[in-house]
Amino acid sequence: MQFDLPLQELYEFRSAAVAPDDFDAFWSETLAEAAAHPLDARFEPMSTRLSTIDVYDVSFGGYAGQRIAAWLMVPRNGVRPLPAVVEYLGYTGGRGHPSESLMWSAAGYAHLLVDCRGQVGADTPDLGCIGAPQSSGLVTRGIEDPRDYYYRRVFTDSVRAVDAVRRFDGVDPDRVIVAGGSQGGGIALAVAGLRSDVIGMISDAPFLCDIMRCSTITDDAPYSELREYLRVQRGKLERAERTISYHDGVHFASRATAPGFFSVGLMDTVCPPSSVFAAHNAYGGSKRMQVWPYNGHENGMGYLRELHLEFAASLAKPEAVVGG
Amino acid sequence: MQFDLPLQELYEFRSAAVAPDDFDAFWSETLAEAAAHPLDARFEPMSTRLSTIDVYDVSFGGYAGQRIAAWLMVPRNGVRPLPAVVEYLGYTGGRGHPSESLMWSAAGYAHLLVDCRGQVGADTPDLGCIGAPQSSGLVTRGIEDPRDYYYRRVFTDSVRAVDAVRRFDGVDPDRVIVAGGSQGGGIALAVAGLRSDVIGMISDAPFLCDIMRCSTITDDAPYSELREYLRVQRGKLERAERTISYHDGVHFASRATAPGFFSVGLMDTVCPPSSVFAAHNAYGGSKRMQVWPYNGHENGMGYLRELHLEFAASLAKPEAVVGG
Amino acid sequence: MQFDLPLQELYEFRSAAVAPDDFDAFWSETLAEAAAHPLDARFEPMSTRLSTIDVYDVSFGGYAGQRIAAWLMVPRNGVRPLPAVVEYLGYTGGRGHPSESLMWSAAGYAHLLVDCRGQVGADTPDLGCIGAPQSSGLVTRGIEDPRDYYYRRVFTDSVRAVDAVRRFDGVDPDRVIVAGGSQGGGIALAVAGLRSDVIGMISDAPFLCDIMRCSTITDDAPYSELREYLRVQRGKLERAERTISYHDGVHFASRATAPGFFSVGLMDTVCPPSSVFAAHNAYGGSKRMQVWPYNGHENGMGYLRELHLEFAASLAKPEAVVGG
Amino acid sequence: MQFDLPLQELYEFRSAAVAPDDFDAFWSETLAEAAAHPLDARFEPMSTRLSTIDVYDVSFGGYAGQRIAAWLMVPRNGVRPLPAVVEYLGYTGGRGHPSESLMWSAAGYAHLLVDCRGQVGADTPDLGCIGAPQSSGLVTRGIEDPRDYYYRRVFTDSVRAVDAVRRFDGVDPDRVIVAGGSQGGGIALAVAGLRSDVIGMISDAPFLCDIMRCSTITDDAPYSELREYLRVQRGKLERAERTISYHDGVHFASRATAPGFFSVGLMDTVCPPSSVFAAHNAYGGSKRMQVWPYNGHENGMGYLRELHLEFAASLAKPEAVVGG
Amino acid sequence: MQFDLPLQELYEFRSAAVAPDDFDAFWSETLAEAAAHPLDARFEPMSTRLSTIDVYDVSFGGYAGQRIAAWLMVPRNGVRPLPAVVEYLGYTGGRGHPSESLMWSAAGYAHLLVDCRGQVGADTPDLGCIGAPQSSGLVTRGIEDPRDYYYRRVFTDSVRAVDAVRRFDGVDPDRVIVAGGSQGGGIALAVAGLRSDVIGMISDAPFLCDIMRCSTITDDAPYSELREYLRVQRGKLERAERTISYHDGVHFASRATAPGFFSVGLMDTVCPPSSVFAAHNAYGGSKRMQVWPYNGHENGMGYLRELHLEFAASLAKPEAVVGG
Amino acid sequence: MQFDLPLQELYEFRSAAVAPDDFDAFWSETLAEAAAHPLDARFEPMSTRLSTIDVYDVSFGGYAGQRIAAWLMVPRNGVRPLPAVVEYLGYTGGRGHPSESLMWSAAGYAHLLVDCRGQVGADTPDLGCIGAPQSSGLVTRGIEDPRDYYYRRVFTDSVRAVDAVRRFDGVDPDRVIVAGGSQGGGIALAVAGLRSDVIGMISDAPFLCDIMRCSTITDDAPYSELREYLRVQRGKLERAERTISYHDGVHFASRATAPGFFSVGLMDTVCPPSSVFAAHNAYGGSKRMQVWPYNGHENGMGYLRELHLEFAASLAKPEAVVGG
Repeated sequence: MQFDLPLQELYEFRSAAVAPDDFDAFWSETLAEAAAHPLDARFEPMSTRLSTIDVYDVSFGGYAGQRIAAWLMVPRNGVRPLPAVVEYLGYTGGRGHPSESLMWSAAGYAHLLVDCRGQVGADTPDLGCIGAPQSSGLVTRGIEDPRDYYYRRVFTDSVRAVDAVRRFDGVDPDRVIVAGGSQGGGIALAVAGLRSDVIGMISDAPFLCDIMRCSTITDDAPYSELREYLRVQRGKLERAERTISYHDGVHFASRATAPGFFSVGLMDTVCPPSSVFAAHNAYGGSKRMQVWPYNGHENGMGYLRELHLEFAASLAKPEAVVGG
Repeated sequence: MQFDLPLQELYEFRSAAVAPDDFDAFWSETLAEAAAHPLDARFEPMSTRLSTIDVYDVSFGGYAGQRIAAWLMVPRNGVRPLPAVVEYLGYTGGRGHPSESLMWSAAGYAHLLVDCRGQVGADTPDLGCIGAPQSSGLVTRGIEDPRDYYYRRVFTDSVRAVDAVRRFDGVDPDRVIVAGGSQGGGIALAVAGLRSDVIGMISDAPFLCDIMRCSTITDDAPYSELREYLRVQRGKLERAERTISYHDGVHFASRATAPGFFSVGLMDTVCPPSSVFAAHNAYGGSKRMQVWPYNGHENGMGYLRELHLEFAASLAKPEAVVGG
Repeated sequence: MQFDLPLQELYEFRSAAVAPDDFDAFWSETLAEAAAHPLDARFEPMSTRLSTIDVYDVSFGGYAGQRIAAWLMVPRNGVRPLPAVVEYLGYTGGRGHPSESLMWSAAGYAHLLVDCRGQVGADTPDLGCIGAPQSSGLVTRGIEDPRDYYYRRVFTDSVRAVDAVRRFDGVDPDRVIVAGGSQGGGIALAVAGLRSDVIGMISDAPFLCDIMRCSTITDDAPYSELREYLRVQRGKLERAERTISYHDGVHFASRATAPGFFSVGLMDTVCPPSSVFAAHNAYGGSKRMQVWPYNGHENGMGYLRELHLEFAASLAKPEAVVGG
Repeated sequence: MQFDLPLQELYEFRSAAVAPDDFDAFWSETLAEAAAHPLDARFEPMSTRLSTIDVYDVSFGGYAGQRIAAWLMVPRNGVRPLPAVVEYLGYTGGRGHPSESLMWSAAGYAHLLVDCRGQVGADTPDLGCIGAPQSSGLVTRGIEDPRDYYYRRVFTDSVRAVDAVRRFDGVDPDRVIVAGGSQGGGIALAVAGLRSDVIGMISDAPFLCDIMRCSTITDDAPYSELREYLRVQRGKLERAERTISYHDGVHFASRATAPGFFSVGLMDTVCPPSSVFAAHNAYGGSKRMQVWPYNGHENGMGYLRELHLEFAASLAKPEAVVGG
Repeated sequence: MQFDLPLQELYEFRSAAVAPDDFDAFWSETLAEAAAHPLDARFEPMSTRLSTIDVYDVSFGGYAGQRIAAWLMVPRNGVRPLPAVVEYLGYTGGRGHPSESLMWSAAGYAHLLVDCRGQVGADTPDLGCIGAPQSSGLVTRGIEDPRDYYYRRVFTDSVRAVDAVRRFDGVDPDRVIVAGGSQGGGIALAVAGLRSDVIGMISDAPFLCDIMRCSTITDDAPYSELREYLRVQRGKLERAERTISYHDGVHFASRATAPGFFSVGLMDTVCPPSSVFAAHNAYGGSKRMQVWPYNGHENGMGYLRELHLEFAASLAKPEAVVGG
Repeated sequence: MQFDLPLQELYEFRSAAVAPDDFDAFWSETLAEAAAHPLDARFEPMSTRLSTIDVYDVSFGGYAGQRIAAWLMVPRNGVRPLPAVVEYLGYTGGRGHPSESLMWSAAGYAHLLVDCRGQVGADTPDLGCIGAPQSSGLVTRGIEDPRDYYYRRVFTDSVRAVDAVRRFDGVDPDRVIVAGGSQGGGIALAVAGLRSDVIGMISDAPFLCDIMRCSTITDDAPYSELREYLRVQRGKLERAERTISYHDGVHFASRATAPGFFSVGLMDTVCPPSSVFAAHNAYGGSKRMQVWPYNGHENGMGYLRELHLEFAASLAKPEAVVGG
């Protein structure tokens, strides 16, 4: 069922969320703090049964220099230097097994798949967790203070991932694209808003956009985690709103400049269409929106792949493999 | 629906869980580490609108000396020294508002209601959290290592709460009862297994008993959190089993010596009857089981109150208020 | 999810329900009929294990003089005369065990907790039941005629409870407050609309307001009982509407004069926010609305207690216990 | 899903329910009390748009002489005297519109469709209701005492319906069959157990068999009403069991002597297969069981019609219409 | 819950669906193709246990001359010639057992109950099925091309059924009414739009009206089958829309001229009220709408029977049986 | 929840299903009929954005020579001849976009991904469909006769796919492995039972094993489609059983000789563990079972990939790419 605004109104929709005055200062300081720790990106070759792709077990210093895991997949015979795609994960996911995610490297990109700290499938702990009372999940971890908030650490890790992939010998540092879906789409938006030097951004059904409103218009997880927290902690709404205001994708979107690709399912109750359009409509770079009228959060699935490859190719111009 | 074993089999049921050889050593060391930090129990009188009960905002040093919040309610005109009930909370709960829990103090007990660190309704952070990957909720927090496990900290806090209530002027240190339902019932069991100097234990529909088996026989939260973790982290079953083996209520039960009161709903899908009987049947002290054939996890509700008061009175013999 | 009107519209919302011309006559006659039977309030001291509170098993003559059960809790050492709170119960509830409800007496009030006839947890039968065809539950019992309707009897009992508490030696008849949540909130509204001599009214998430509209905007029980009846008895809509028109909380609200305290959860699908505001906005006395943006029918829980105590204290000015 | 015992065990299954010593005395007295009131069966011809069937609006004195509604449908040109089928209704139903139930009369039977007092779709009130506390629905109405129990009145009405149909001019009093499905099947069983002068009994998926056990093995309504009552009224299990023991279909079955037709769906969670077999296996007359392995409570639907007509014809031998 | 437009707006609602230019040509050709095959209506007398009604096992040539099954029920002693009702079935249904549907024949009509090809309960295969990829069910069978679409065959069969009933000796060919509910209501609309020679049309809660819009405003089956198809086949929306445009009940409605009876439940989530009104408001003949404010897709049930009989009698004027 | 047999019993479990005497003759004839049609395997090179993998759009003659679509992915620089993996799809799926499934080709295999006729996501119609009445979905399509049954066509297509991949220039015909999960796992089993010349079989959580029993022990789709059919078509159980007996994976398993890899989730309600073990325990070749105690039908996901690659490499010994 299409439960949100009609499509024509979605294209006009503007979030009522307002960024705090010190939004940019908050993030400048945050990233500066992280930069004070060594990046120390390490790429350890993995022995796999794949023969067209080389895989590296990656780690680098993220928020507070804490080690973040990732996989790097590169086409074995690809022409160097390679453009790169830095991909962020959906909620609860982990970097998994490299063989699960072979498209970008098969298409001639160095592909960095970045773990998300502390999530159930991850290999990376959320060392910065302070154990404050929270509802189930990670959306309200540290929500009482913007400086303690879980996504402050995640976004910082994710920005640092862009630096990490550039340290890999064979990657062209001037052709890095950030990408992701759902939570990963929200992270990609944040990175695009914080880093003017990426050349493209792909955000499918992004989570973490127009967050406070989403907590009142859908009952689905993970926005429901925020609702659940506020259901119990009735006196902490203002503090939560303040913390969220430093992390809303709508504010990152308006600061982004790289070309952006968005997609949305009009029946998505996890990341409601109006919140995806809120980010899209605010987005500062050139942009494209792919609408799926009959899809929910599963979004475009295989249909997105060709669109992603086209969008990325138009920006990064990967070359074929040697001898291909 | 009664979905678990028939009642006659429940009375015979024995958990297959086995305690590790160093179970007692693990807990001796854990409690010794905590004891190395000052208890520093503080009782700050609260201004409330209650006129028969005095309320104190309590804090004390729990695990690693981290401050744990509690409420102490005492009958304003009760005859000193007072027997005490230390009560632990159900999952996700917090100590709440003192006026929500007035029975024990109205019946002549000093009543310490102990917060549970990090839970969504709590006033106490889980400072010991290391942010390791986990499923939603708290049941798998730190599950990769028994020393990092969430309930190691909670049980330690809860043992220390017994010491704390004894520091209150007017409490008789030789008449302390521990009590709770659901998670609180699991905690009361643990404390009774770790502290031979409490004079009674009340455990209604206890959580955290025969844990691994429960993770395979019910889909309800919070045992489902363990299932969800193992669903994703397919390679970590042995590590999880090892951690759980140091925290299973069945093992605490067999070490307890104080008289115990148990209750169970035969339709309880949250804390399955066989797991409650597993603890009861293993319990080392004298014991009583109250069975509700048509109840689920809501258990006995108001019907339990008279039973609790009788059980406690038979052990602690509270006196009436002055002039009462 | 916030499914009802936006908050700003809720403050403006007016029910379309219209009271019948003889609404006041209907209730005058109803109460006069009841008054023709002896009240015969009896207060039998109970032996309990509580030492700060005295408990009385109460009965009095309600509708048609039928005996209604209640508990009276009074602070043992409270300064007489005591202000009183007459509390009504939520749907399906019964007066339960006195130790479940100790706040008002602990705060210095005589607290009458009134049973609700015929409900599954009650000690009081609904002797006036005529057995007419009805859907499950009590909402449609006797709905074919206003004189046979279940809530006519309940409201009459509830008005008589105010008289009953005044007969207790030690209660100040000029300081009686009526209170309740959900069904109890609807009853409190009705009593406040029928009795100008109460000094305050507390109504949390009241049921039975703007009833016909509620039967079309929510699927949750107990409004669904009315929908279910009309789903089957397709020809009796007009009769049902007529009966309801004599019992809608909106009409009682407009007749009330005592100061009123309301609360509402904006995600309440049981008693939709617009129906709570319908009563609040029509309320004839001074009034206050406490809004919980992220709560459903669980409403404010512990957070309400302090607000209730403050509101009541501002009106009833209870004194501390002797020697307190 | 087939959730109950395997089919071979079902054929061996015996209910553990035990009839009270005075079961037969209880019912003799009950029926004698009813017989002391005039039956006064009235048959008012209805004007309908049906041209092959004549319809009569029937009423007769049931329990305590209270008027019970029914429809009588007779083939306009059928050869007199006609055999008769007295049919009882499923839970919540009412006699409805005569045109909904035309099979028996079209097949040459006088067909009495008996209303069920107080049910939401009925035209007959349950005048004997005493308003005692009960859970939603009718299953626990008056459950504290066998003499007040709802089904005592219903079964008495239903026995009297057999007498009523015999008063209709043109009915052969020696060829009366009782029939029904679900609640109606339970009633037919009861009537067959109480009246040795019916010549056949049809009971599809009967409700009200092995009642106490059913309240623990299914969560579906209406057995859930009993569970819900006992969930709340924890202290009234023995009283409920006693009342039920006078009304369990298993006890009526063992007293029946007329040939019986049963049917059961092996996936029926409303009236579990073992309870249907409990009645069938105890049944005192010759009997036949039709098993539907893949059906739930919808049972055989249209497939039953031919079976019912055959079974009835083998006993009642209806003749064709005049000129047919 | 009433989830669709308010009643006053429903009466004004107009579908945005537009018929293709060649809609009428498409259907003329379709019916002409069918007419090129012999109708060959066969009426085989059945031996049943019914004595007031004669039953015939019917078959006739439908789409592409494929044999379609039906039952014909006629009053044994009815006065010839008889008016006729041709009834179409709800989704998944089959013609079932003749004794399930006796009202029309009992009221003096020849009643043809037409099977729906390929549905799970049917006796008639869908020989024209081409096996194209489709979602579960039949709504998207052959949806890629209007000529392959399932309902093209069904509507053609259903038009031919009108011809078939006229071939029965004793039926008055000038008094044929078409009728049905849900899918059957959609079919009746289609036949009324394609055949100007029927004298009445009854359509209860019709399916297949304003189809594309329905696929976005409800999640219930069977409109969900279309949503599911488009969820997967993201690239085939235009083709599906084109196919649907030849089969939407709104377009048939505007072409109908016979008096029409409609009914709607305002809580119907299967066939949303606005889609029923879309057909009603577009209907070309005189029309009547029966609104059930508290009903879902179950609609009027028994209450409809008297209304149907009245409506049909006003048009077809059936006579009583001989000797009646 | 683990709802099926305990693990130790699963290893001993034997299906009660019995193959018909002419099972082998049925399949010999079926395959011979198919072989009478030309295979005509066509491999059309696709232009994609992938640079390490070459993709071919494949079609070949399956059942009755009907064209079946597939993708072939081959490593661009892989050393010829290549071993091959023929993969079958899960229920409702289609071959999708080639970039979704890159593991096997990246690991040095020619990878044929075979479409499944008529499924919602497929590019291949089920031309052999005869339109017989069926429940939703494909499991009961043509179930009245084994020769008309849907899976007869699918299994035949799937056998032919093995022939097709061997026609590709560069594939080693002596190193073909068949693989799939869920429906694809059932198909792989069938092919392994029908073709002794494949060198390995991978079957994850196979559907279509011990089918009749599964239709009674789970309510989940797609086994529920069979239950739904038999729920309605009460008289066709024997015919359905007969048809199923020619298509049960247990019978194919006992005829297989190639080494087999199985996996099972002990909480799988879609393909219950006992049915997976029924196939495994009957399997004729050497075999390995991977058990996931806490997984449902999602089974091992990424964890399976390494296991699959190891199992396949031990049999097929793929070589690295040129220059790798």
